[in-house]
Amino acid sequence: MTEQQMPNWLAKRAFLTPDRICLVDGPVSWTFQELNDYVQETARRFYCLGVRQGDFVAVLLENSYRVPQIIYALQYLGAVTVLLNIRLAAPELAWQIQDANCKLLVYDAGLSDTVETIKSGKAGMKALLYDDLIALPTADALLPQNLDLEAVHTILYTSGTTGRPKGVMLTNGNHWWSAMGSVLNLGLHIEDKWLICVPLFHMSGLSIIIRSVIYGIPVIIQPKFLPQAVNQSIQKEGVTIVSVVSSMLARMLEQLGNNRYPDAFRCMLTGGGPVPESLLQQCRKKRIPVYQTYGLTETASQIATLSPEYMDSKLGSAGKPLFPSELLIMDEHGCKMPGEVGEIVVRGPNVTNGYLHSKKEKTTAFQAGWFHTGDLGYTDAEGFLYVLDRRKDLIISGGENIYPAEVEAVLLSYPPVLEAGVVGCEDEKWGQVPVAFVVAAGDVEITEEAMRTFCRERLAHYKCPARIYFVEQLPRNAANKLLRRKLAEWLSERGGTL
Amino acid sequence: MTEQQMPNWLAKRAFLTPDRICLVDGPVSWTFQELNDYVQETARRFYCLGVRQGDFVAVLLENSYRVPQIIYALQYLGAVTVLLNIRLAAPELAWQIQDANCKLLVYDAGLSDTVETIKSGKAGMKALLYDDLIALPTADALLPQNLDLEAVHTILYTSGTTGRPKGVMLTNGNHWWSAMGSVLNLGLHIEDKWLICVPLFHMSGLSIIIRSVIYGIPVIIQPKFLPQAVNQSIQKEGVTIVSVVSSMLARMLEQLGNNRYPDAFRCMLTGGGPVPESLLQQCRKKRIPVYQTYGLTETASQIATLSPEYMDSKLGSAGKPLFPSELLIMDEHGCKMPGEVGEIVVRGPNVTNGYLHSKKEKTTAFQAGWFHTGDLGYTDAEGFLYVLDRRKDLIISGGENIYPAEVEAVLLSYPPVLEAGVVGCEDEKWGQVPVAFVVAAGDVEITEEAMRTFCRERLAHYKCPARIYFVEQLPRNAANKLLRRKLAEWLSERGGTL
Repeated sequence: MTEQQMPNWLAKRAFLTPDRICLVDGPVSWTFQELNDYVQETARRFYCLGVRQGDFVAVLLENSYRVPQIIYALQYLGAVTVLLNIRLAAPELAWQIQDANCKLLVYDAGLSDTVETIKSGKAGMKALLYDDLIALPTADALLPQNLDLEAVHTILYTSGTTGRPKGVMLTNGNHWWSAMGSVLNLGLHIEDKWLICVPLFHMSGLSIIIRSVIYGIPVIIQPKFLPQAVNQSIQKEGVTIVSVVSSMLARMLEQLGNNRYPDAFRCMLTGGGPVPESLLQQCRKKRIPVYQTYGLTETASQIATLSPEYMDSKLGSAGKPLFPSELLIMDEHGCKMPGEVGEIVVRGPNVTNGYLHSKKEKTTAFQAGWFHTGDLGYTDAEGFLYVLDRRKDLIISGGENIYPAEVEAVLLSYPPVLEAGVVGCEDEKWGQVPVAFVVAAGDVEITEEAMRTFCRERLAHYKCPARIYFVEQLPRNAANKLLRRKLAEWLSERGGTL
Repeated sequence: MTEQQMPNWLAKRAFLTPDRICLVDGPVSWTFQELNDYVQETARRFYCLGVRQGDFVAVLLENSYRVPQIIYALQYLGAVTVLLNIRLAAPELAWQIQDANCKLLVYDAGLSDTVETIKSGKAGMKALLYDDLIALPTADALLPQNLDLEAVHTILYTSGTTGRPKGVMLTNGNHWWSAMGSVLNLGLHIEDKWLICVPLFHMSGLSIIIRSVIYGIPVIIQPKFLPQAVNQSIQKEGVTIVSVVSSMLARMLEQLGNNRYPDAFRCMLTGGGPVPESLLQQCRKKRIPVYQTYGLTETASQIATLSPEYMDSKLGSAGKPLFPSELLIMDEHGCKMPGEVGEIVVRGPNVTNGYLHSKKEKTTAFQAGWFHTGDLGYTDAEGFLYVLDRRKDLIISGGENIYPAEVEAVLLSYPPVLEAGVVGCEDEKWGQVPVAFVVAAGDVEITEEAMRTFCRERLAHYKCPARIYFVEQLPRNAANKLLRRKLAEWLSERGGTL
């Protein structure tokens, strides 16, 4: 065993606390021992299929016990999970599967239509229905009982500012250190239960199923976010920690009405931008402990979180970098002083080593061991982080990231479009939605409806422009670069909403 | 920053939670910020004295805030703390200081006599009274804000079976992973307070001052173990965790009488051998959660601990190896089956890389990455560890390890002694005390009293034989090897006690 190896997490947890509950999904629950047995069986089925150490396997599953089952099975084999966003359109998924050179795709029956479309475009890709996978025979494979902290565990795609998605490589070690950083901030009680109502294909959901096993605490998986179901779980099922984004929290409080959460509920971990003051005030009244946090896929979830003692005094802050991590505010001249705005730059053992196919040294996001997030913010004199803007131009809609460049690229691929610019528009329900400004080619007929249909076939629904404005020209600078800031002004001149 | 670097623990903790209480010593307390300021100042004084990265500094201090102050100051400089047992005799200390080639010795006024004796034997060694150290000017040194997990943090001497003490090298990483293994078993509450009534120069005490900073919780340091003081702290000062050995726990319960501990008291971490059943029953009645544990200096404290849910059903067990660690039972033919007795063999990132001056590859205790403890035990079918005998012949007296060979070597250096054999004798107060069997040279006069005086000048008091028996010959095997087992029989023929 080298210094970078350690016991396989699920094997070790099942050995340590076999009878503790690990997973609750609707009426069904698993102990750590039961999950481990089931996962080992699944790993042997994958082995039968030829899946080996270092192979990439795409996973397209809805929120359920199946996600941890498949991820932990692949971890046993040392294979890499390429975790796909089920909201993406078939061409987007096909691109990612191709990019990661996946040997196999495992999918839920509910996503069969999408998979058929993907398969039709890519002959020879092996796609296997989850139900068919678990009906396979198991091989007599001896599963390793250790894992390598330096081996890649997951690939999660994130759209870069250029619009081409990049596969973030997260190692076992990235996830481990993220779990350690979090536990040193949030603590760990033997009665803890963590509720998952965020997508498991996002870092926020994935990190919880990893922590559950490392910490030895149960997770409750809900198929999707329903405020009433979440509140019910907190009130009746002893949930102590929930991960949400701000807009979810607002809906939970609305549904909660005059009721309160039990005292045992100890952490509302809130990501995806600062919680509005009015919402925080409501939480304070109801004694709901809100932990505001800042994180990225590239940092394997939270990298900064506001400690409970500063919840009130540091309104709007995302706190300080977790114990193993560091954070700086920089511009091209170097580090900024407290209060000065700059780019948020981080490092730590939870931070990815880089993107698939792009060497770290050649990626401008990595400089001298530091990861440049592209997000803007500042720290106050005491070192508390205030995040001002997520990555340049990034639109966050219902917790999903939308890069304007990616949507623009699809719009531009529609022949009647000459130029396209996309910008976020404030939206009461989703926080933001994308809106497009389009210059039509003079001689071709173009309608908003036809363009929407074109987009829907190629983009996840949440990425499709909620409104398309036809204009004569787009705002550009001297170098002909699109000025999205100016588009935002145009939008506000049009009333700022839809 | 390489993968093996991370933020300096105290700097990071003071940054994260500056106002939380860190340390309580009698009427005085420090926040993390205050301790960090004081420690940085101390580090600059050491720098002034010429202490640099990689230097070895001997520390001879009684239990007080001074121990963490000095250890964290040396950690800032990347210097190595050689933590000395204040109960040792001057020649024993001199040997260790010489062996580690210490550049400097820092000591408490109360230990001046011992230090004078050490200095008289070793001209030129720089010894500095603690009070003189803190009166020194500070240098304007810039202290590194990161530490290297692979750098040696502490040297703790442990007597080997051969009787010659060996310096166990513990890296920052060994301590860090030990803290992680422990937190995943014991959990972490924001209200935690850990009481230290064990020696800070032992692994049990040292590990707590390290965890305090990593976890962000206060430690209460008591100068020595007084059952009433410990109980008072638990009952009045909100202590939630205490580290003890079995005999201390017995005295605490006796003093406690019919009283109970508050519900917030959540962990009685008990090392140094299994807790007798009668004592466990008393604890169960009083709802005191006892965590029985097994650890060595070489494993940076606990490596196995009994999880709370098995406290009752696995009586006498030391539990299972902590999350990052592994444990096997072996003999010279390989691994033993459950229920079969063998040597306890461990590995994990908390386990030392080896002893000072002896290359790991050349130390028989390390084989193929596994550390052979020399302790005997077995695991049951579920993997729970039962420790039968600490290292071959080891005598444990009041929590201190005594190696017979070391005491024998001193006895043999007394000219009128021809042969000597030392064995443990059961003792109500101390658990065990050493007893010697001696063969006198025929022509020289010899008295027990003279021998005791000789021993006291050269050995810690607790190592001096409580009784010396003069015999005509010692039991030896065909190869002339001393049979200590036979000595134990002789002792039991003499009544088994003093």
